Amino acid sequence: MTENELECEDYEYIIPDSDLSTFGINEGISETIVTTGFDVPNAAPIGIIRKNGKTFVRLFKGSHTWENVSKERYLAANIVYDPLLLVRSTFFDLDLSEFTFVVVDGRKFPVLKEASAWVVFQCANMKNTDHAVVTDLVYLASGRRERDINIFPVPNRGFNAVLEAAVHATRYQLSGDEKYLKWIRHYEILASKCGGEKETQAMELLYEVLGI
Amino acid sequence: MTENELECEDYEYIIPDSDLSTFGINEGISETIVTTGFDVPNAAPIGIIRKNGKTFVRLFKGSHTWENVSKERYLAANIVYDPLLLVRSTFFDLDLSEFTFVVVDGRKFPVLKEASAWVVFQCANMKNTDHAVVTDLVYLASGRRERDINIFPVPNRGFNAVLEAAVHATRYQLSGDEKYLKWIRHYEILASKCGGEKETQAMELLYEVLGI
Repeated sequence: MTENELECEDYEYIIPDSDLSTFGINEGISETIVTTGFDVPNAAPIGIIRKNGKTFVRLFKGSHTWENVSKERYLAANIVYDPLLLVRSTFFDLDLSEFTFVVVDGRKFPVLKEASAWVVFQCANMKNTDHAVVTDLVYLASGRRERDINIFPVPNRGFNAVLEAAVHATRYQLSGDEKYLKWIRHYEILASKCGGEKETQAMELLYEVLGI
Repeated sequence: MTENELECEDYEYIIPDSDLSTFGINEGISETIVTTGFDVPNAAPIGIIRKNGKTFVRLFKGSHTWENVSKERYLAANIVYDPLLLVRSTFFDLDLSEFTFVVVDGRKFPVLKEASAWVVFQCANMKNTDHAVVTDLVYLASGRRERDINIFPVPNRGFNAVLEAAVHATRYQLSGDEKYLKWIRHYEILASKCGGEKETQAMELLYEVLGI
């Protein structure tokens, strides 16, 4: 695709390379916020899995993401470094004003305004498992915020702790197992020690959601 | 400083902004590999702390970094996304061939060839505590690899797990407390599940070092 095909003014820089490794989506699981839904945009934290040369995701049945992807066969992976947005998208619907749209191949894809970059994928070979759908991802297009071109997200144990806490919080909500609360309390200390204001806010919101 | 003052061919892109936030070094603790030593370069993982508008580091007495900084009053923070290099620099001396030198204000600073970016700081207001020295950091210059300009390091729980394991491993080495081994084993599972080949190699090396 050429630069002219992309009509979103928010994203002025297009990554010409479809090799996800040069883009930062490496082997293993890359934690992104996935946006879907041409009509009603939705955002949810989902890991993009690369393994044995394949790129795929696992979408839980019943989720908005699963619903949209089943119908539309596309998703956008948003790269986000904001721990508060991570927690908000884990537990709440984002406001419509937090999305912007990028036009790829004549279709308008919802992506997050806050994202430093996004990759739009086509979903192929959808396979059902008991509780989830596994779908291969085929690279379609990607963009990056001009604004964030100089930003290097330096590893921060506080940010990482919020990510772990969010994972454990969803497991706690599903299972009610109190072992997850122990983890969450451990990560709260780490987020407060190694993170900044955003990490503190993110953990406060997470505690509020869990009622602890 | 101007672009001409920087004579290192490996780093072709200079970040003109001395605001560390736009660079990715935010409030909290940013995990970097610090290089020091004009004569004998040394590398060690050290957190750059930003708190209440100040930027500083805590250097343990007796370490090579402490020794070099006490004498020379400079350090470079290297931004590295390679988990194996992180573990190697935690436990071993890196080979001289892994360093390159950047010329800032007529001085040749060692930085890591593998770093995606680096920031050179002058060290000021050094203060002694019982086991450490705390020194303020004054921004001097920064550079970024042309090679890595398109790379967005997407959050990866496997990489993060290696970072946690390395922290716990140094604590285990200092204290011998077996509680750290439990943490390390937890993070080994996470690194293997969410990381790639590099994360696996990094954890293998860490296990080898600890003899577990």
